[in-house]
Amino acid sequence: MSRKPNLAVVGATGAVGTVMLGLLSSREDVWGEIRLIASPRSAGRRLTVRGEEVEVVALSEEAFDGIDVAMFDAPDEVSAQWAPIAAAKGVVVVDNSGAFRMDPDVPLVVPEVNAPAARFRPRGIIANPNCTTLTMMCGLAALHAEYGLRELVVASYQAASGAGQSGVDALRDQLKQVAGTGVGEQTCDLRAVITDNGPFPAPLALNAVPWAGSAAADGWSSEELKVRNESRKILGLPDLKVSATCVRIPVITAHSLAVHAVFEREVSQEHAQDILREAPGVVLYDNPAAGEFPTPNDVVGTDPTWVGRVRRSLDDPNALDLFLCGDNLRKGAALNTAQIAELVAAELGG
Amino acid sequence: MSRKPNLAVVGATGAVGTVMLGLLSSREDVWGEIRLIASPRSAGRRLTVRGEEVEVVALSEEAFDGIDVAMFDAPDEVSAQWAPIAAAKGVVVVDNSGAFRMDPDVPLVVPEVNAPAARFRPRGIIANPNCTTLTMMCGLAALHAEYGLRELVVASYQAASGAGQSGVDALRDQLKQVAGTGVGEQTCDLRAVITDNGPFPAPLALNAVPWAGSAAADGWSSEELKVRNESRKILGLPDLKVSATCVRIPVITAHSLAVHAVFEREVSQEHAQDILREAPGVVLYDNPAAGEFPTPNDVVGTDPTWVGRVRRSLDDPNALDLFLCGDNLRKGAALNTAQIAELVAAELGG
Repeated sequence: MSRKPNLAVVGATGAVGTVMLGLLSSREDVWGEIRLIASPRSAGRRLTVRGEEVEVVALSEEAFDGIDVAMFDAPDEVSAQWAPIAAAKGVVVVDNSGAFRMDPDVPLVVPEVNAPAARFRPRGIIANPNCTTLTMMCGLAALHAEYGLRELVVASYQAASGAGQSGVDALRDQLKQVAGTGVGEQTCDLRAVITDNGPFPAPLALNAVPWAGSAAADGWSSEELKVRNESRKILGLPDLKVSATCVRIPVITAHSLAVHAVFEREVSQEHAQDILREAPGVVLYDNPAAGEFPTPNDVVGTDPTWVGRVRRSLDDPNALDLFLCGDNLRKGAALNTAQIAELVAAELGG
Repeated sequence: MSRKPNLAVVGATGAVGTVMLGLLSSREDVWGEIRLIASPRSAGRRLTVRGEEVEVVALSEEAFDGIDVAMFDAPDEVSAQWAPIAAAKGVVVVDNSGAFRMDPDVPLVVPEVNAPAARFRPRGIIANPNCTTLTMMCGLAALHAEYGLRELVVASYQAASGAGQSGVDALRDQLKQVAGTGVGEQTCDLRAVITDNGPFPAPLALNAVPWAGSAAADGWSSEELKVRNESRKILGLPDLKVSATCVRIPVITAHSLAVHAVFEREVSQEHAQDILREAPGVVLYDNPAAGEFPTPNDVVGTDPTWVGRVRRSLDDPNALDLFLCGDNLRKGAALNTAQIAELVAAELGG
């Protein structure tokens, strides 16, 4: 290809899309045209990318004319319908929905972990992992390379923006409603104060909601199964033991995870810290005596995943306990998608 | 003893003490006099218990004259100094600090789990467990009796009131400061908005802080070691494998725990639910498809610990994943202390 490839951003007006436009404006400019696509409802809006105003066009087959790479951030059913239509026109689709992640003919890619997998894409589609899984993949892949990963026990502390802009709006409204009340004392009930749960199954302000996604079999949530199945696929470990409990907490942006990881070989705290310090896409921030551990607010707006609280289990020399934070809209969504698209751009350019 | 025993409440004006006075007013009245004791700074205040105003007296050796049972909710160093002084006067001390919990001559008691242990108290002191540990003990003890507990991986979602009234005040102030801001977006930093972290090592509103307690060896926090050591002692399992990650979240009251429990024997989801349904001190609330799972706000002001999200691990037939919530000021502190004191009252009465 003698020209720069043309990019389409599908879902440009959503929470992830907004972050994406900021990213595209700040990263190395590998793209020719950047076309913004959204639902017909949002068509005609003008958004700024790379310092220029661009008019949003409605999703249609023609919207992909002349496009080389399309990044989709859309509901599962929209991706399921439209990604194959774009791919049939020769567009390489990088999809951030759950529609294709477990399709054996669709690679699931974290560029720091398994970039070569992006080249094998028989359907013309590459999937971007779930934001919860992405929060831990860079760190765990680096530890796996050294120690051989055998088992993961994960508890999540997920932000409202993982449920999209409606999640952010709901949490902000709820916070205003509870800010001056006695909620959380022995006598005052959130449910009497909060009138709208938004996209969550219970009030989120001043609360923790142990449910994300839809109901899967045997009491598991779809989000918990994504953590298990996607970790296995990305790391190439089909028998990896994974138990996850996914919990939403009243944070606007940035997911956190408490991870207990068991390995084939004996670990040491210091060596694990060295590995994480050198791992691509990871920042080690781990000196609790000096108040250094990642919190969601520390990492909002940053690219890497942050790891702290690295400890060797006191009762298992092969196990590490960690706390990880990552911006769910950046590395957890827009950034990883952009990184995959850039891999494809480099491939097309060569 | 032909009269009702006399009770002293040490730390009557604190966050736990306040809940204690409410509890003493609502539970069966097994006490003669109830004397309220606090630091000299709070002496002279008048508080209501059992419908009567009682004047708070300053902590001193004489304050224990005529007292049979004393409940201490005080800082470690205050308990360490004063509990032995009271015990030397023949008072049975029920202590909620960390000063004596791991002393082999001090029983660590959860009445639903190991009530008989309260009778063996060579120092005249009985310890009340840490609130985080208490959130899971009733449920896990019941499962242990059936399946044989081998290993625990715990991630906590701890409330601000676990750090006392100053924690509650700090979180409420912070919530007012952030309610109208763009904190948590890609560009706005909590640390620029929040001027006082209170007793926490980082801002808590709209954040998660993976640190509770003081620094122990090898990167562990004192809170995480309490979960390990106290669980082992209460359950009588000195070799139980325990890894905990303790995290504070912006909730006023009620701790939550995600627990991965591995047993000697194979488990089933349904049978585990049956066990928890019958377990003393436990409410099973577990039908996610109907929106039924415990959240901190659901359980504030209630006595039992609530258990939901009961799942058998998909990769280990001997492992269960659970989510538990309990009021850290009630079962996690005041209620369990009152229950222990009532065990002693019944013993003295007999």
